[in-house]
Amino acid sequence: MTQSKLVKTQRYEAGVLALNKVSPGIEETMMNSVEHIAPFFKQYVVESFGDFFSREQALSLQQRELAVIASLSTLGHAQPQLQFHIQAALNVGCSRTEITEVISTVALYAGVPAALNGLRTAADTFKSIEE
Amino acid sequence: MTQSKLVKTQRYEAGVLALNKVSPGIEETMMNSVEHIAPFFKQYVVESFGDFFSREQALSLQQRELAVIASLSTLGHAQPQLQFHIQAALNVGCSRTEITEVISTVALYAGVPAALNGLRTAADTFKSIEE
Amino acid sequence: MTQSKLVKTQRYEAGVLALNKVSPGIEETMMNSVEHIAPFFKQYVVESFGDFFSREQALSLQQRELAVIASLSTLGHAQPQLQFHIQAALNVGCSRTEITEVISTVALYAGVPAALNGLRTAADTFKSIEE
Amino acid sequence: MTQSKLVKTQRYEAGVLALNKVSPGIEETMMNSVEHIAPFFKQYVVESFGDFFSREQALSLQQRELAVIASLSTLGHAQPQLQFHIQAALNVGCSRTEITEVISTVALYAGVPAALNGLRTAADTFKSIEE
Amino acid sequence: MTQSKLVKTQRYEAGVLALNKVSPGIEETMMNSVEHIAPFFKQYVVESFGDFFSREQALSLQQRELAVIASLSTLGHAQPQLQFHIQAALNVGCSRTEITEVISTVALYAGVPAALNGLRTAADTFKSIEE
Amino acid sequence: MTQSKLVKTQRYEAGVLALNKVSPGIEETMMNSVEHIAPFFKQYVVESFGDFFSREQALSLQQRELAVIASLSTLGHAQPQLQFHIQAALNVGCSRTEITEVISTVALYAGVPAALNGLRTAADTFKSIEE
Repeated sequence: MTQSKLVKTQRYEAGVLALNKVSPGIEETMMNSVEHIAPFFKQYVVESFGDFFSREQALSLQQRELAVIASLSTLGHAQPQLQFHIQAALNVGCSRTEITEVISTVALYAGVPAALNGLRTAADTFKSIEE
Repeated sequence: MTQSKLVKTQRYEAGVLALNKVSPGIEETMMNSVEHIAPFFKQYVVESFGDFFSREQALSLQQRELAVIASLSTLGHAQPQLQFHIQAALNVGCSRTEITEVISTVALYAGVPAALNGLRTAADTFKSIEE
Repeated sequence: MTQSKLVKTQRYEAGVLALNKVSPGIEETMMNSVEHIAPFFKQYVVESFGDFFSREQALSLQQRELAVIASLSTLGHAQPQLQFHIQAALNVGCSRTEITEVISTVALYAGVPAALNGLRTAADTFKSIEE
Repeated sequence: MTQSKLVKTQRYEAGVLALNKVSPGIEETMMNSVEHIAPFFKQYVVESFGDFFSREQALSLQQRELAVIASLSTLGHAQPQLQFHIQAALNVGCSRTEITEVISTVALYAGVPAALNGLRTAADTFKSIEE
Repeated sequence: MTQSKLVKTQRYEAGVLALNKVSPGIEETMMNSVEHIAPFFKQYVVESFGDFFSREQALSLQQRELAVIASLSTLGHAQPQLQFHIQAALNVGCSRTEITEVISTVALYAGVPAALNGLRTAADTFKSIEE
Repeated sequence: MTQSKLVKTQRYEAGVLALNKVSPGIEETMMNSVEHIAPFFKQYVVESFGDFFSREQALSLQQRELAVIASLSTLGHAQPQLQFHIQAALNVGCSRTEITEVISTVALYAGVPAALNGLRTAADTFKSIEE
């Protein structure tokens, strides 16, 4: 047996706390299909998320979420993650205008398609909240 | 209120003219879901499109559409925009062979998957025209 | 008539042999929608695949498939090709752990979203085998 | 004569104003080697910069510079532009910690090399200020 | 001994002919540092170049070079190859305006930094010709 | 004071052990310019490296280094990291042929420039060893 199980270390619990601040309860359902085949990877993601997002003295949760949205929009191939972080940004108090403005600005640096596809994900996320 | 409305400037009208040359009537329906949340961004895209595509003395519409198709195929994550520009290229008189040959060539510079996924988008676009 | 037909050269037949080692019978169905509009491109892909994958003295099929999985996961926009090569890797004897571990490692170098989306493709592929 | 000259439109002057807020005097020297061969492109960049960076009611200059730094770090191939915007971020009042924290966070989403190379550019920029 | 030598097949000679059309004599010096450690790779590149660039009935050399320039500018990390193809485009009769206009257009689809760095490479190439 | 110091946790020491297996003594000099401005980031990189590279039951060091080389070559913008991992791959027993073959294969999936620039880095690394 080569694949170690997900171990809920102290860092993991700190990661869950940080996740709950941006998306309450997410840890239980996140990466379900992946957790089965790569438990170590879920552990790594939760722990690393906690490492960064608990550093609120360096960057507020709002600031960090906007930076993440800029990064994910730039990538272009990360729509599921972008959707998660648009919702998270709203949860921690970013305004819709801040979110759409950050994604729009990406057009200058990574091109119109990256920004446009990011804005479509934002529009879907905003709409799903209203319904 | 922080989000300015879409303003139909002189540049915007020039953008609509340029858009109509490659895809008649597109401005009314393009980016509908996005226009609602980011009207400034639609304005920026239409105006910028006009800035470039009205420069026909520097590059013909056929030449520019083929360059755009090469760029979008290379990105890999911009299939909706690629579909639009494959249709636009046909509208301004590029041949199917020119289009598939440009996308195929991208395999050498950006890899087989980028070219292959681009050609699948081309096949879908060609098929939707025939139906 | 500008588009040459697919010509089954000696290199093409070597490509089919190489393809059959990683995915028996694939050449008949691969790139069907694309073959119609760009027969040269299918020829190029099969021939090039053979050029690389027949070099088993330099890299075993297992080693090459794992390298390809690392490359495709890194790209992020090549899920159909990644799915093919995850199946191919299993066919030539790579273990599920080797595959998920290679994709997980990509998180360090190309980011968590690239690895996560790659692992989702792996989970889907593994599941479709079990059904 | 196909290449139009750089025209200092009203939008261009607004772009210069916006540029001067983040990097006083930059317009005169920016893109010198490029202005000669593509005057239209310099005009487009200055005008577009103004379009986005004058929207301070939607996003403060500090917020926008941090978003741009996240986007440029993610790209990986835009070190000259990243250097400019790290300096600009400092000019508009972002702290060094905010800048390094945004770039570090990119490691999670675009990989360690993108963040590491971005941080090296930040280290160079900070050092050149001290000298 | 696992590394096969570069074999000058019929396809290789066709590749040299195609290369000579865009850059006379290039095959002797191209990829010198790489040829020593990966002779097969040089063979693959020359042969593949010939496969594509000899298809002049499908796309003229000028059209293909402009498509390649759009693709390489989009990538952002391929300045040595972009420099080669800007020179090649001039050699086969593309105008400087066509080249700078194609690279400028990439700003809309892949962002300003990709276009700007591409234009800097063009400025360097044009300047080295004048000297 | 917002920037925490680098803390040599148990995970950090495990990371140093893992690093020493692929490149003895590297931890002392790695990321020197960056450690000064972002000590947390060096800690994160060393710890994360250890998380992955200590999982030798899942993937041997040779296998993991070849996967990393495939990923870094694909990115195109990560030559310093690629150079490090080519040296590391040699250190853990990969052959030069395995390394050049993995990078060459990337040409099919991420394009010739990515592979070619990667092979140039390999040629430089091999040469620096011989001197």
